[in-house]
Amino acid sequence: MRALILNCSLKKSPEPSNTQRLADLVGTELGRLSVDVRTIRLADHDIPPGVRTDLGDGDEWPRIHREILDSEILVFASPTWLGHPSSVAQRALERMDAMLSETDGEGRPVAYNRVAGVVVTGNEDGAHHVISEISGALGDIGYTVPGQAWTYWNMGPGPGPDYSETEHGHDFSAKTGKSMAHNLFSVASALRKVPIPAQS
Amino acid sequence: MRALILNCSLKKSPEPSNTQRLADLVGTELGRLSVDVRTIRLADHDIPPGVRTDLGDGDEWPRIHREILDSEILVFASPTWLGHPSSVAQRALERMDAMLSETDGEGRPVAYNRVAGVVVTGNEDGAHHVISEISGALGDIGYTVPGQAWTYWNMGPGPGPDYSETEHGHDFSAKTGKSMAHNLFSVASALRKVPIPAQS
Amino acid sequence: MRALILNCSLKKSPEPSNTQRLADLVGTELGRLSVDVRTIRLADHDIPPGVRTDLGDGDEWPRIHREILDSEILVFASPTWLGHPSSVAQRALERMDAMLSETDGEGRPVAYNRVAGVVVTGNEDGAHHVISEISGALGDIGYTVPGQAWTYWNMGPGPGPDYSETEHGHDFSAKTGKSMAHNLFSVASALRKVPIPAQS
Amino acid sequence: MRALILNCSLKKSPEPSNTQRLADLVGTELGRLSVDVRTIRLADHDIPPGVRTDLGDGDEWPRIHREILDSEILVFASPTWLGHPSSVAQRALERMDAMLSETDGEGRPVAYNRVAGVVVTGNEDGAHHVISEISGALGDIGYTVPGQAWTYWNMGPGPGPDYSETEHGHDFSAKTGKSMAHNLFSVASALRKVPIPAQS
Repeated sequence: MRALILNCSLKKSPEPSNTQRLADLVGTELGRLSVDVRTIRLADHDIPPGVRTDLGDGDEWPRIHREILDSEILVFASPTWLGHPSSVAQRALERMDAMLSETDGEGRPVAYNRVAGVVVTGNEDGAHHVISEISGALGDIGYTVPGQAWTYWNMGPGPGPDYSETEHGHDFSAKTGKSMAHNLFSVASALRKVPIPAQS
Repeated sequence: MRALILNCSLKKSPEPSNTQRLADLVGTELGRLSVDVRTIRLADHDIPPGVRTDLGDGDEWPRIHREILDSEILVFASPTWLGHPSSVAQRALERMDAMLSETDGEGRPVAYNRVAGVVVTGNEDGAHHVISEISGALGDIGYTVPGQAWTYWNMGPGPGPDYSETEHGHDFSAKTGKSMAHNLFSVASALRKVPIPAQS
Repeated sequence: MRALILNCSLKKSPEPSNTQRLADLVGTELGRLSVDVRTIRLADHDIPPGVRTDLGDGDEWPRIHREILDSEILVFASPTWLGHPSSVAQRALERMDAMLSETDGEGRPVAYNRVAGVVVTGNEDGAHHVISEISGALGDIGYTVPGQAWTYWNMGPGPGPDYSETEHGHDFSAKTGKSMAHNLFSVASALRKVPIPAQS
Repeated sequence: MRALILNCSLKKSPEPSNTQRLADLVGTELGRLSVDVRTIRLADHDIPPGVRTDLGDGDEWPRIHREILDSEILVFASPTWLGHPSSVAQRALERMDAMLSETDGEGRPVAYNRVAGVVVTGNEDGAHHVISEISGALGDIGYTVPGQAWTYWNMGPGPGPDYSETEHGHDFSAKTGKSMAHNLFSVASALRKVPIPAQS
């Protein structure tokens, strides 16, 4: 089974990314379950705005789109800015909007029988909202979102340290991250064995 | 298999409920798939505010809680007020918050291996947000939310007719309602055959 | 000038309310600015669901509605449950929805030239979202929301102490609460001197 | 007085923009009130991700930032994608986040005594949520959001025509757009005459 981590940090490599660090915990757990895990850091790629899969002319989304379709599990990882998913995350969702009209050989939306979960970091507040916004959009596209398929880290109230600058609450985030990996893998396995059939 | 429709209309019986009418479409589809469908109209019951399963003293939630646990499929149906899930819907979510610490014989949260979807009505705008808010909360509690497990009806911009007062867009809502029933049933069936195991 | 604090805690008096404690900081600041501050704890009152100002038959909302109209400043205070405003808060917003069609002597919506701000408590995460949800609804009804007219307290990630059980971050919440009072008072004063006129 | 329309369409010039068309209605009304209105279509500019005002190296944000500070009124106009503000809108909010720590000569956040409103288009659903998300973020930064300072157009349920492809509901959007202009101008005028003072 394959999983793809989409890191929606605003920062390019090689700047350290808190979001990557937390997502890596989930990736490591998925690896222990024999899942082949890949990561794409979207800020490193040229992804113009739009709602089609291929906008031509240097657009790097088509390759990312293929990686998404090669993966039964999607780990969507975003920082929190102004309480929202990052602009990089929203850009990815917009490009994934095209998947709504892409179907498999049996006429099902391509996202069917795939699962997704959400990783969120931030230095203040907003994780549950970011999780709901992203999960809602992915469910719209056709992803199944297993129960408790998320982890997050933040520390309110007000401005404070980043995830990498403190140990506060790391145990909580690691524990929910481990459950997230377990639940993503379990539901992906169930849907592989008993897929959602085409509607008659 | 059993499904429960929680109708979160602000109106009591026997006042007609647009939300009920749309939820019934989903219920009928589930019935065609041999699911045993029950409905609770929450406004008909005394459900005091709180975050425990039994608040004593005339609290009617414990019986509803049992119906929830008797059902593999939950259809959460809410009108849209001020762009949000109704206060009756939020009340139900608050009471369901207690399910976070209720576990089955193997130590899993009781909502694991259950699926949920959302039905939304309104005369203006707001359905996708209501779906995300409710799905996000149910995912928190442990429900798996299948892809495209929602239907809605509204008609913007501005005030206008209710669902029952026009035929505009009923075909869309019926089609998504049918997909919703199909996806709820399919994923519930997959999780029955291949359940999320307890975490080791 | 008058201000009204609507405390949307799920708990009735005399149970201590974290939300009240934080709202009181704002109330005290408003008092220092010579504002006459009153508080209503909604859970102590019988407020049936609906979207009309008077539902008859023991409905206690009409008296609250009068207090709202007697106040130039509204402090809307809610705990966070499942990442959302409480069901008591949403109930109040639904009842306030009727204010959309209530106009003053010059035909303006009754909420015009009034200001509102939001106080949020919770033991985890979600304050900014709760603020946006409530502010958005109050803006819809016609309230002006001054910049930085909010304060909140929470402490993520995951479950933890309540506001009253720790000193963590109290200074932040007090500082933003003081700004909130200042901004509510300043904008209310500006609108008293230079009101939004009726539209010609 | 000056107003700036930030058009957050995903599309570059000269492609027609529904969002621009609706925002122009508001701009025209502001013009009738003698406001000097300018428009920036963000997709035409190179705005890299980040949360600082000047990211150097071809970054076109600093010029936009100056236009924002030259304007007492901000009209934030966004299409709806996946039920959310566009990635271009979120990008702008992230860049505006830096304004939180920029202060005027008296130590007030630079957004104080400025007002903002939101214009939303979409072909389905989601306007109120987009308005709340954007207003909430702008309020965080320090903008005052007058009551009913928004207009929107969409038409649910499901996919359908764009704003420019139908006349359905245009009267509603024009009427709320006119109120929006009136309220933005009125509250901006009030804050010019009676500004929020620095906190002592």
